[in-house]
Amino acid sequence: MKPSVIRQAEILCVGTELLIGDIVNTNAAYIARRLATLGIGVYRQSVVGDNPARLAEDLRAALDRVDLVITSGGLGPTYDDLTKETAAAVFGREMFLHEESLARIEAYFAATGRVMTDNNRKQAMMPQGAVVFPNDYGTAPALALVREDGKTLVMLPGPPRELEPLFREQVEPFLHPRCDAVLFSRNIHIAGMGESAVENALPRDLLESANPTLAPYCAEGEVRLRVTAKAPDEREAAALCDSMIERIRQTPVAPYIYGIDTPSAEAALVELLKARGLTVATAESCTGGLIAKRLTDISGCSAAVAGGAVTYQTREKTAILGVDPALIKAHSVVSPQVAEAMAKGALARFDTDLAIATTGFAGPGGGTERDPVGTVYIAVATKKEVHCRRLSLSPWRDRAYIRTVAATNAILDAWRLLNDVHLPKERP
Amino acid sequence: MKPSVIRQAEILCVGTELLIGDIVNTNAAYIARRLATLGIGVYRQSVVGDNPARLAEDLRAALDRVDLVITSGGLGPTYDDLTKETAAAVFGREMFLHEESLARIEAYFAATGRVMTDNNRKQAMMPQGAVVFPNDYGTAPALALVREDGKTLVMLPGPPRELEPLFREQVEPFLHPRCDAVLFSRNIHIAGMGESAVENALPRDLLESANPTLAPYCAEGEVRLRVTAKAPDEREAAALCDSMIERIRQTPVAPYIYGIDTPSAEAALVELLKARGLTVATAESCTGGLIAKRLTDISGCSAAVAGGAVTYQTREKTAILGVDPALIKAHSVVSPQVAEAMAKGALARFDTDLAIATTGFAGPGGGTERDPVGTVYIAVATKKEVHCRRLSLSPWRDRAYIRTVAATNAILDAWRLLNDVHLPKERP
Repeated sequence: MKPSVIRQAEILCVGTELLIGDIVNTNAAYIARRLATLGIGVYRQSVVGDNPARLAEDLRAALDRVDLVITSGGLGPTYDDLTKETAAAVFGREMFLHEESLARIEAYFAATGRVMTDNNRKQAMMPQGAVVFPNDYGTAPALALVREDGKTLVMLPGPPRELEPLFREQVEPFLHPRCDAVLFSRNIHIAGMGESAVENALPRDLLESANPTLAPYCAEGEVRLRVTAKAPDEREAAALCDSMIERIRQTPVAPYIYGIDTPSAEAALVELLKARGLTVATAESCTGGLIAKRLTDISGCSAAVAGGAVTYQTREKTAILGVDPALIKAHSVVSPQVAEAMAKGALARFDTDLAIATTGFAGPGGGTERDPVGTVYIAVATKKEVHCRRLSLSPWRDRAYIRTVAATNAILDAWRLLNDVHLPKERP
Repeated sequence: MKPSVIRQAEILCVGTELLIGDIVNTNAAYIARRLATLGIGVYRQSVVGDNPARLAEDLRAALDRVDLVITSGGLGPTYDDLTKETAAAVFGREMFLHEESLARIEAYFAATGRVMTDNNRKQAMMPQGAVVFPNDYGTAPALALVREDGKTLVMLPGPPRELEPLFREQVEPFLHPRCDAVLFSRNIHIAGMGESAVENALPRDLLESANPTLAPYCAEGEVRLRVTAKAPDEREAAALCDSMIERIRQTPVAPYIYGIDTPSAEAALVELLKARGLTVATAESCTGGLIAKRLTDISGCSAAVAGGAVTYQTREKTAILGVDPALIKAHSVVSPQVAEAMAKGALARFDTDLAIATTGFAGPGGGTERDPVGTVYIAVATKKEVHCRRLSLSPWRDRAYIRTVAATNAILDAWRLLNDVHLPKERP
C-alpha cells in the first residue's frame, strides 16, 4: 500500500517548563518553518505539561484532525518523560528494548566520560513498529509511528540543539516521499529603501504573482522580500524563485539589494571586504561595541576586521581616536562633525581601508532639543571620502532597539559606500 | 455577586505568522510567567491561524475547561484581525464604537505624525460590556469580557512591546482581586561555583522546603537559585523569600552571590563600579566587542564605562594596547601573558581603575594543540594587581556560545576581583 500524502500537521510540544513559561518555545516555530518547505501546512500548535492523560487526549484529537502530528519533549530518562509510553498506548503498541539504541546510548556516555545511570535505559525503550531515528546530538533517539490509515506521529527530543539537526537530517527525508510538493524560499535583502518605496518600485504582476509568491517584510533597519515557489521538487522550485529574482534585478530596486539569502548585514559587509581584500575598523560611542561584536560574530572575519575603539566617554574620543577637543566643544559630542572625526581617527589609528563611527543618544537618559534620544550620527570613511548622516529614531523606542537599528544602518552604510550606492540623508 | 476565583488559565495565540513559524512565540512564555506570579496555573497553550471558525471553536472549548482564557493577536486594523469579532459572537455580544478608544487612536496618529486610515477605526470597535484597557504603546486597546458564570476572556494585542506592559500595568491589577494566592520569586545569582557545588553547600531542609521552594538553574557561565513563595499577598510572599535568602547568606555559598534579582552580570558590575566611583575599560580579542556592548547595554553606564579596544588582529594589540611584539612572538597571541599585557595596556591607555581582557579561540576555525577552540584567556587588572585564568569550553560548542560564556566569565571575574572573592583557576 502506498502511504498516503501528508498535507496538514499539528505540532504538540510537551513539557511543564514550556507551559509555565520558564523557556520560550522555539521548537514550534522551527518545525513549522521546516514543514512549510515540505508543502505541509500547520493547522495548530499546542503546549501541554507532563501529564499523560491530557497528552493522550490531545494526541487522539490531533490524529483525527490532521495527517501528521509532531511532538517535542518527554523522551528523556526521568519518570515524567512519558511521550513514548503515551503514544504506545494511543497506538495500541507494546514497548520493547531497542538494542541498537541502547548500544548507542552506552557509547555516548562512554565517549563523554559520564556514568550511565539505569534510568537511561528507558530512552532505548520503543513502541513496537516504531521507525527509530538515531540521535547523534544527545541520548534520546527520535521515532515515528505510522497508523494503518497512514496517520503519522513523529516524536522528537525537546532540546533545540538535538531536535533541529534530527529533524533536518532524518525526519525530512522520512517525510519527503509522502509530500506532493515542496515550497522553497529565497530572501532578497534590501537596504536604503523603505518598504513602501520598494513596493512602489515593483511591477504589480510580480507583487500579485501566485507562484512564486512575493512578500515584503520590514525588519530592523532593512526591508526583506521573500520569494516562495511551490513545485514537485526543490530544484524546480529554486528555478522558479531565481527567475523572479532576475526580474526584480531589472527594477529600480536592484542597486539597493545587498544580498540574496544573506544571514545579516554584517555577513554581507564582511564577505564584500574579504572579496576585495579590504579591512575595516570601528569607532563606537552610543553603540558601545555592538558593531564590532556583530562584525566579529562572523567566523573567518579576522582577515577583514582589524579591530575597533569603544570611546564611550568623551575624553576617550580624543585619547584613542585623536578627535580635537575644540571640535567637540564647538559642535558637542553628538554631532556630524564628531562622527566624521571619529571615523577618520579610526581609519588612521587602525590603518584600515574603511572605518565606521557612531555617536548619538540611545537613551533612556540624555538627548538635547536639537538631538533628542533616538538621534544617531553615522559616519563611514575611506581614505578618499567620508560620509555622514543623521538617523532619527523614535525616542519612544528602547535603548536596545535604537542601538540595534543604528548598528545595522551603520554596517549597511559601509556596504553602500563600497558599492557606490546612493547613501541616504536620513533614515532609509 | 462576588466574581469567582481564578485558578487555571489557557493561553491562545492568534496569528498565521506564528503558526507558520515566521516568528517565535514569546508571548505565551511571558503570559505564563506572569500568571504564575498570580498563582494561576496554565493548563494549555495553543497557536491558531487567522481563521474565525477555528478560533471560535477553540475559545468555546477553552472557556469550558478553565476559568480564564488569554489571547494575543488579531486586534489590529486589517480584515484578517478577527479576535474581538469572534469573541463577541462566542459571548453573544454586539459590537459598538468605543469613543474613548477612537479619540486615543486619533491622538496617537497625530502625535507620531502619521495619517490615520479608515480601517484604524476598527480598533476602537468593542463588544458590549467589554472592560477596555487603553494602550499607551500602540493603537489597539486590550480588553476583557466576563461571562455570567465568571469565566473570563482577556484579549491582548500581539506585538510583545505592547502586550508586555499592558499585561503588567492593567491586566494584572484587573485579575488580582480574583486570585486567592500570589506566587513571588527572587533569584539569587551565583558566580564561581558550579551547580553541584552549590547544591552540596546548601542544607537539605532548604533544598526540600515546600514554601518557599528553592530551585537551582544552570545558565551560561553562572548558577541561579530561584526562591519562590506562595502567600495571600505579595508582601507576605516577599517576606518568606527574604527569610530564606537570609539563611542562604549563612552558608558557604554567600561569598559567591553576586546579586539578588540582578538582571545580568554586566548590570551587577556596572552598579558596583558606580557605587565605588570606579571606571572600567575593555581589551577584547576573541569576544570582539561583546563585553563592551554588554557593559554599555546598561543605561546610565557612562560614569563607569570609559571605553574599550577591540584588537582583533594581532598587530592592533601592539598598535592600540602597546603589547610587546616579542611577548606575542614568545608566547603566541592566545596566551595568559598576552591577556595580562592587554589588560595592563587598556588600564594605561584608557586610564581606568579596572580593565578586562580576553584572547582565545572562539572557532569554528583556529585553535592549537595546547589551546583548542573553546580556550579563552581572561585577564582582569587593577592598578595593584592583574589576574589571569584559562577558560576551557568544549570545542563542540558554537562560536556564539563560546563568546557569550567567555564574556560572562570575564565580567564576573572583574566583579570578583573588586569584591576580593576567590577567583577560579579554570572554569567555575
